[in-house]
Amino acid sequence: MPANDDLKALIRTIPDFPKPGIAFRDITTLLLDRHGLAETVGRMAEAAEEWGPVDLVAGTEARGFLFASALAVELGAGVLLIRKDGKLPGATIAEDYALEYGTDRIAIHADACAPGARVLLVDDLIATGGTAIASCRLIRRTGAEVVGACFVIDLPELGGAEALRAEGLPVHALMAFEGH
Amino acid sequence: MPANDDLKALIRTIPDFPKPGIAFRDITTLLLDRHGLAETVGRMAEAAEEWGPVDLVAGTEARGFLFASALAVELGAGVLLIRKDGKLPGATIAEDYALEYGTDRIAIHADACAPGARVLLVDDLIATGGTAIASCRLIRRTGAEVVGACFVIDLPELGGAEALRAEGLPVHALMAFEGH
Repeated sequence: MPANDDLKALIRTIPDFPKPGIAFRDITTLLLDRHGLAETVGRMAEAAEEWGPVDLVAGTEARGFLFASALAVELGAGVLLIRKDGKLPGATIAEDYALEYGTDRIAIHADACAPGARVLLVDDLIATGGTAIASCRLIRRTGAEVVGACFVIDLPELGGAEALRAEGLPVHALMAFEGH
Repeated sequence: MPANDDLKALIRTIPDFPKPGIAFRDITTLLLDRHGLAETVGRMAEAAEEWGPVDLVAGTEARGFLFASALAVELGAGVLLIRKDGKLPGATIAEDYALEYGTDRIAIHADACAPGARVLLVDDLIATGGTAIASCRLIRRTGAEVVGACFVIDLPELGGAEALRAEGLPVHALMAFEGH
């Protein structure tokens, strides 16, 4: 069995969500499985360890939070929250990114990372990479270093992993799905 | 030093957020601290273990996700997502709860818990308990058992922990703050 096909079998595909023609890759069935969850976190940690020590694991609201904290505990790191603009209580810096129609904005606390801090970016899925690239730029603006980006699922046809690598970021995903 | 005062010192208080007169207890400073994060998860797990084995840790969007997955890995359990209505891709059951003005609605996947599953509820903070009680009722509707509820912060003046206990649920919080 190829690596991680055991975990891939735990992902449920829901047709036509959130709109007709989209095959939604649902991670909730993997999360419900105690072995699947532990293995997912363990294999992401293993991949991240190849990039050297990590001070902070940055997770993007909301599903990124699920992997950021478990991974942070596993790696002995802290967690950096990347939230939708307006949700963080302290002074923030923000970054816009393009959606299919219009733009969205994410933010981090301005004092969250020390310059030189080594930050690992994590999310459940990489599609076009819009959120991940904005997250990476946001973290770099604090003077911290983004050491790499880890995802459970890559949708390679949408080019996000490639776009992140073009930003100089090593990328690891546990599995890939065709289509989008 | 009383238990958990080391962790309490890592919580930042932000005055007048999200509106004038509210002292917001900000957990992001605790999350950024690698020792604080590991200790928080470890002490919550220790408290939960007193209630017996756990099959699933249920976390409420969005900050509850941060503790649910780390705690689930620690306890050898899976994660059950409680999300705002409309966010989950599969068939759901939902529950309304009262806000200061109006109501809000949370949902879980209808097939997420097996009847008899032992579920631990976790969130960052318990205030009036509206979300936590709705979460508990939602989980019980599947035939699963809620074994207890764990929080980082309790605001006892708002009565949420008391209201949860009145629902028959053991409650543990690592720390309490005066005011609301």
